[in-house]
Amino acid sequence: MEYETPLFFRVMQYASQADRDVIDMVSGNPDWEPPEALREGLREYADLESAAFQYPPSAGLRELREEIAARRGVDVDQVVVTNGAGEANYLAMARALERGRGDEVILTDPVYPYYPGKTTMLGGTQRFVPTDDAGQIDPDAVREAASEQTGAIVVNTPNNPTGAVYPEETMRELVAIAEKYDAVLVSDEVYDHYDLSGKFASALAVDSDNRIVTNAFSKSLSITGFRVGYAVFPPELVEAAKSRHMLVNVAGSRPAQYAVLQALQETDPAYYEANRELLGERVDTFTDALEDTGAEYTRPDGAFYVMARFEGYPGTLENVFRLIDEAGVAGMPGEAFGDSRTEWLRFALVTPRVAEAADRLAEYFG
Amino acid sequence: MEYETPLFFRVMQYASQADRDVIDMVSGNPDWEPPEALREGLREYADLESAAFQYPPSAGLRELREEIAARRGVDVDQVVVTNGAGEANYLAMARALERGRGDEVILTDPVYPYYPGKTTMLGGTQRFVPTDDAGQIDPDAVREAASEQTGAIVVNTPNNPTGAVYPEETMRELVAIAEKYDAVLVSDEVYDHYDLSGKFASALAVDSDNRIVTNAFSKSLSITGFRVGYAVFPPELVEAAKSRHMLVNVAGSRPAQYAVLQALQETDPAYYEANRELLGERVDTFTDALEDTGAEYTRPDGAFYVMARFEGYPGTLENVFRLIDEAGVAGMPGEAFGDSRTEWLRFALVTPRVAEAADRLAEYFG
Repeated sequence: MEYETPLFFRVMQYASQADRDVIDMVSGNPDWEPPEALREGLREYADLESAAFQYPPSAGLRELREEIAARRGVDVDQVVVTNGAGEANYLAMARALERGRGDEVILTDPVYPYYPGKTTMLGGTQRFVPTDDAGQIDPDAVREAASEQTGAIVVNTPNNPTGAVYPEETMRELVAIAEKYDAVLVSDEVYDHYDLSGKFASALAVDSDNRIVTNAFSKSLSITGFRVGYAVFPPELVEAAKSRHMLVNVAGSRPAQYAVLQALQETDPAYYEANRELLGERVDTFTDALEDTGAEYTRPDGAFYVMARFEGYPGTLENVFRLIDEAGVAGMPGEAFGDSRTEWLRFALVTPRVAEAADRLAEYFG
Repeated sequence: MEYETPLFFRVMQYASQADRDVIDMVSGNPDWEPPEALREGLREYADLESAAFQYPPSAGLRELREEIAARRGVDVDQVVVTNGAGEANYLAMARALERGRGDEVILTDPVYPYYPGKTTMLGGTQRFVPTDDAGQIDPDAVREAASEQTGAIVVNTPNNPTGAVYPEETMRELVAIAEKYDAVLVSDEVYDHYDLSGKFASALAVDSDNRIVTNAFSKSLSITGFRVGYAVFPPELVEAAKSRHMLVNVAGSRPAQYAVLQALQETDPAYYEANRELLGERVDTFTDALEDTGAEYTRPDGAFYVMARFEGYPGTLENVFRLIDEAGVAGMPGEAFGDSRTEWLRFALVTPRVAEAADRLAEYFG
């Protein structure tokens, strides 16, 4: 399986060239405001003396790492600030595979397509475990797929594209499976601030030398373009990850790190809550309208996405283009996320026009 | 050979904990001002609507890539904006090795230590070709080292640490050697704005499908912490490099790219000239003082560094620590740059205290 991005760009491009108004539900860019303290942090940074424009520590600004470590209840030495969750996942998966315990990477189907892409780039082998209709993982199925060949198990909770939030018991069992084969569970938790179920459980809750947690501020602070993320490594795995980070990127971008630190320190919990509520309202609006069309759909427990399946309208790129032209709504083809969702389309709820999009779909498919 | 950074950090740390005033000549962070337009660009960006805070195109902001392409006389499609020269070199070397033409990477001795580090991380084999005392490469020596096993030849001009600037004839011959074995010449030209000799020749001057040029704005705009660099690939090599860039980093940091674009568009050539002149004056001051100590030293044709060799004082980490404690000057041990410069120390001329440092060295060794 290839990775999503070129497909994603093709859809965006097609939508932008369409000869009509199109509601963009393709990508996971939040459309809400970043916190004011983030903007203020950038302004402040712009006036600092030039020494503050030079290399930050490779693993990230010390204060930012401390802030992250305090929030996540880990030692600051375990935290590596990365160029977004993208680099965090790359470092985590590379670290898992270079240990030489196994070159198989267990992934879910459906899957966030960057994971299989990274697996192949790193010389690993993809192995998919299907989730159920709600996107939940059956730990027994993972246990069955796991073996001495397993180098890593990569999961994403809250999940893109299914919206599933894995219960603590699942996380605990996944860590146990990783431990059994001395593999590494990589848990990408970039949507942790958008848990609508109240059941989100970080893999950090399970203490283990066999799990790495990745995250970023891209979604929680509405700054996917800043590229500030992090990974929390077990003490034994962190040094080699820092070396790879240095050899690939030297360090992350300092103005972005500075602004994120400011935002973390000064942003009220109400900011995060308001965005989560907004998302919850959009889920209601969108799924209510889908209900009226008679379509099958997922009701996400978290993250930004609703998947829908319209009778006689499989989730191909061709149908996505047709939906852009004929209904004025742009989504992602389910086939981009693996074999199990080829009949489905994914819609990102990061537009204020969710109700309008739902109306268009209802009219088109109704 | 390992890479420089941990050593570099150890020296910085030792210097900062010293029980006396120490002049820092360790790192290559410019101490002069970034252009005012860069600060202005950041301020402007801070006030943009939140859509401008989301993912930039993976290969970089379109206008920035166009600006780079226009300046370098290449097609915009050949340009990938990277997280500094660090990522540019990583992408270039990975691209060269993954072609499967050979896993040997020909490097110079002395060498910028990240290159051998990246080589090993990418599964390649290091092969060193010694330079002459002035840091010049003999193309015949490279030709002799090259073979069917050669995947890449990596050079840096103007050179860190020697200060050598390779003449156009050398660049031409290096490209020809890469072509002969269908290998890739990677030319890291991050110090191109600090050519004091007027003889700098970019590898871009030699049209070829077998050379990649890397660069960054870290040194030219005095922003090593912003992490904005780029690589220019031949058309046949660029797509796979863009894929790797996406899979590793998704994209670079947008506020930094925005500010750099602003700086490029609005900064007068006088800005670059003034910094180059300042550097030239510092070279004179520092080498004049070294002359008085009777030490051997290099007189750089470009880049930020002077290497010096003091009788009975080899370039070990131990001696670097001793120089910090006893003379109050912090440099880098020559042994960090390879076997050929173990007797030497490297001093970075990026402090306003160059004259004072030279006096301290003169007194200590005089």
